Amino acid sequence: MYLEKINSPADVKKLSSDEMRALAEEMRAALIKKLSIHGGHCGPNLGMAEAIIALHYVFNSPVDKFVFDVSHQSYCHKMLTGRKDAFLDKAKYDDVTGYSCQQESPHDFFTIGHTSTSVSLACGLAKGRDLLGGKENIVAIIGDGSLSGGEALEGLDFAPELNSNLIIVVNDNGMSIAENHGGLYENLRLLRETGGRAECNLFRAMGLDYIFVEDGNDVDQLIAAFSGVKDSEKPVVVHIVTEKGRGYAPAVKDKESWHWHMPFDIKTGETKFQGGEDYSDLTAKYLMAKMDTDPAVCAITSGTPAVMGFWKERREKYAGRFIDVGIAEEHAVAMASGIAANGGKPVYGVYSSFIQRTYDQLQQDLCINSNPVTILTYAASVWGMSDVTHLGIFDIPLMSNIPNLVYLAATSYESFIAMLDWSLSQREHPVAIRVPGGVVHAEKPTKDYGILNKYEIFQQGSDVAIIALGTFFGIGMQAAELIEKRTGVKPTLIDPVYITGIDSELLESLKAAHKAVITLEDGILDGGFGEKIARFYGDSDMKVANLGLKKEFLDRYDPNEVLRANGLTPEQIADTAERLTK
Amino acid sequence: MYLEKINSPADVKKLSSDEMRALAEEMRAALIKKLSIHGGHCGPNLGMAEAIIALHYVFNSPVDKFVFDVSHQSYCHKMLTGRKDAFLDKAKYDDVTGYSCQQESPHDFFTIGHTSTSVSLACGLAKGRDLLGGKENIVAIIGDGSLSGGEALEGLDFAPELNSNLIIVVNDNGMSIAENHGGLYENLRLLRETGGRAECNLFRAMGLDYIFVEDGNDVDQLIAAFSGVKDSEKPVVVHIVTEKGRGYAPAVKDKESWHWHMPFDIKTGETKFQGGEDYSDLTAKYLMAKMDTDPAVCAITSGTPAVMGFWKERREKYAGRFIDVGIAEEHAVAMASGIAANGGKPVYGVYSSFIQRTYDQLQQDLCINSNPVTILTYAASVWGMSDVTHLGIFDIPLMSNIPNLVYLAATSYESFIAMLDWSLSQREHPVAIRVPGGVVHAEKPTKDYGILNKYEIFQQGSDVAIIALGTFFGIGMQAAELIEKRTGVKPTLIDPVYITGIDSELLESLKAAHKAVITLEDGILDGGFGEKIARFYGDSDMKVANLGLKKEFLDRYDPNEVLRANGLTPEQIADTAERLTK
Repeated sequence: MYLEKINSPADVKKLSSDEMRALAEEMRAALIKKLSIHGGHCGPNLGMAEAIIALHYVFNSPVDKFVFDVSHQSYCHKMLTGRKDAFLDKAKYDDVTGYSCQQESPHDFFTIGHTSTSVSLACGLAKGRDLLGGKENIVAIIGDGSLSGGEALEGLDFAPELNSNLIIVVNDNGMSIAENHGGLYENLRLLRETGGRAECNLFRAMGLDYIFVEDGNDVDQLIAAFSGVKDSEKPVVVHIVTEKGRGYAPAVKDKESWHWHMPFDIKTGETKFQGGEDYSDLTAKYLMAKMDTDPAVCAITSGTPAVMGFWKERREKYAGRFIDVGIAEEHAVAMASGIAANGGKPVYGVYSSFIQRTYDQLQQDLCINSNPVTILTYAASVWGMSDVTHLGIFDIPLMSNIPNLVYLAATSYESFIAMLDWSLSQREHPVAIRVPGGVVHAEKPTKDYGILNKYEIFQQGSDVAIIALGTFFGIGMQAAELIEKRTGVKPTLIDPVYITGIDSELLESLKAAHKAVITLEDGILDGGFGEKIARFYGDSDMKVANLGLKKEFLDRYDPNEVLRANGLTPEQIADTAERLTK
Repeated sequence: MYLEKINSPADVKKLSSDEMRALAEEMRAALIKKLSIHGGHCGPNLGMAEAIIALHYVFNSPVDKFVFDVSHQSYCHKMLTGRKDAFLDKAKYDDVTGYSCQQESPHDFFTIGHTSTSVSLACGLAKGRDLLGGKENIVAIIGDGSLSGGEALEGLDFAPELNSNLIIVVNDNGMSIAENHGGLYENLRLLRETGGRAECNLFRAMGLDYIFVEDGNDVDQLIAAFSGVKDSEKPVVVHIVTEKGRGYAPAVKDKESWHWHMPFDIKTGETKFQGGEDYSDLTAKYLMAKMDTDPAVCAITSGTPAVMGFWKERREKYAGRFIDVGIAEEHAVAMASGIAANGGKPVYGVYSSFIQRTYDQLQQDLCINSNPVTILTYAASVWGMSDVTHLGIFDIPLMSNIPNLVYLAATSYESFIAMLDWSLSQREHPVAIRVPGGVVHAEKPTKDYGILNKYEIFQQGSDVAIIALGTFFGIGMQAAELIEKRTGVKPTLIDPVYITGIDSELLESLKAAHKAVITLEDGILDGGFGEKIARFYGDSDMKVANLGLKKEFLDRYDPNEVLRANGLTPEQIADTAERLTK
């Protein structure tokens, strides 16, 4: 076995072509085994084994520097840079993150998880080198739909201005997470079909040199190409064609499902874990029913259709109504504003972590113009994704301080649907809804959401009022019960519903029979919801405690530990109530 | 005179070619006269007179819909759509905004001021039309460097997927605000030189149809081209070549200075207003001196070099060290992170309003990686730009809630320079500095900024403590004086210096001799600095008032009125102090 003997890229350089081919197969076998137990990005990594071997054969990492876009396709790079045990030894599977990571290895220059950043980051490494007189090669590796992201396109456009060494490997496997979207992918197809010889060439039109590698899973072709551009004195694109999912039949057959996959049975490809009711599926069912009756309704995703429950068959059935703009979050928000301005009712579903790309579009294109767009924010929670690059705990400060936006926090399936119903029925406000995680059922709200910033009193009590936002409403209920048990006094429990506004009347009325208010929010406290309540009561005798998460970059954490560290268990909340009222 | 008789586009349609040519000259004369008195965007509008006449001649606005990118080149459009008096009658100059504006006219579909948004917004109008079965033409007009922005490139890439009517007029005048940057502008040059016939064509590579208009200041050529694409059933780019500044010699000669211009003497072209010392010039002088001695230092702008004081001669002298990435804010931040990761010391200067494009890059590319980049935020103030699309009052909630970022608020030239010195000397933190407006001098700080979140006590007093951030420190001083005069008790006055952190020790110590804390900040209160102080004191007896701006979209306002409306005059602050301590 070759992989076991690879402790650094130097060991790769000793191998013959045949040995490298064997190594690639071993790497794929290790990947399939680990992923079947652990889950993770399958297709992207299976397709890149040869390319990463060839990169390490030709270049001299870490002097030469690789920047992997999204870095979900860097597993093989990790294997060859001293981290193979995290793929061979089950006990060590969690020793590495699923993305490139500064802290993990001198071969990783950035912690990366969002798409479309590699070219700009690599431009920076190249410019830093040039300022200080270095000579190393800088290599960006980009693929899987990342090219359509604005940051990548800005980077490609700027790169020629460097006028020095920069190698951009475009891994073209014909796919994004789902199918590719956008005109440029048609140009990649034309280039594939003409062996890279078509005159109309996006990269050349951006001012870049260009070479084409027909079989990006052939180590010899790759080595020849990379050797040819090594020490290039100008930015150059190396367009390689690879097979996503290579070496594992189910992943080749259904590339979308196998882009990222839960643990599975290797033999059958069947997923080991089956979820219950979830908001993705429920969203799609709701939207499909709406689209069936209202021609103005359409749904938008930016490259992650599954988060809205639009699997392939549903996308095909609702073609033209379900719009995948590709990885292009800025465009998604601006286009949604335009659709609404011309009579449509667009619903854009997006992960909390990825809406971060769109602050300016939310503010300028959407909210200044007050167009009736509905945005659904998913995985916006401490229980969302736990990788440092995919945290869903920053959207409240990001979005809720934008004027004109109505940001609602759903607490149950019924409130989520009622909010959607209202949002699609009105033409006054841009609306965002923070979609919960696990599906909880509750009574159907009778509330008119159009009367803005009216909080809901779930339970009227005294002494302490708990204002528990969205996904933390359940914690608020538990804490309220515990406080009553301990003190004999029933606290007031409030579902604020609106993240973007203060119910001054209700807050004012609490002063009569309450000594303290405790706010709970599923996100960082800084710039968030609770601080607005603290501000409101600043000139009064009301004691206020804001509970939520500390402003910090958590990474691969246990949510229960994080809740405890931030005083968010029901017991800790009851303790806080005691402290504030004594 | 023709212009006086144009009350709507219908009046344009009655004109002959010769009459339209005469109209164009009249429009330019009106522009030059108004701009000489009022200031505004000169070059872009002077160059677009014929194109806008031709658009209104061929299309049927407002049924057909025009979307102007940035919309700083929509003055002529305003003249032809019922708003001519705002250009002909001095008393009515302020009846229209400098940008397209929903509220102003049914011919304007959006309020727009940021670059690179038109294609996406127009895609949205087109999609809305298609959903509801409309037939109108949708026309985006983009130019002046906007093409390099990620949002525009995402829009161009997506547009072919519409597969229906969308006309994208690319106004190519060879310029951005300053010279163009990025490889794609080389492709525009190639297209100009080949009469649009070069095979390598960015727009075609994105999947768009394409036609070329050699003389974009020739009404006949334009009418022929627009007539040819009218009712097109596919997205098509019309590339027109215009002369920026046309018809006014100084504006043709020095296109950069005349992109936007202060009031001027028409005869000589001399600016009527001359400013004194300003932070743009001072920044450039500081950075040039640094670059002279430290090869790692470089400066970055995203298309607005003047905000950092880098006029043409300075750019030329520091070529390779002063980097204009073009309009590409996302790339600017990510590249800066890369430069810092490879040993460089990049300083990125940007308007508060435009850094909004980069939340995700600040958080992901920069702050997760904690690279030592310095960002200078200009015009971040109620005294900054007052157009609704260019407000500088949102950067505190946007930036200060990002972990790892150190955001500093300078109060004087000396503190600004000391902050820059510190930032460039350290390798631990991404740093941003909120650059003040008017230049105020003060003692040189002796502070070590590396000891984070240590506020500065400017004046120790009792009863009331005023924590006055950055540009509002002067107001804090005036309020402190007034309070002492009124009550005989000297209040404490604090310069918090750090926007991103709380000095718990100092805040705790204030409890001993103070009943109330008043915070002052030059931005919206929601998600801002003061609320963090309110949160800190939430469980104590300290009374807190947060003073700053309301969360709202102000537009073309008088700063003094806004300050008064938000309780920010020294008198009002003294009243608040009285109320809190009685």
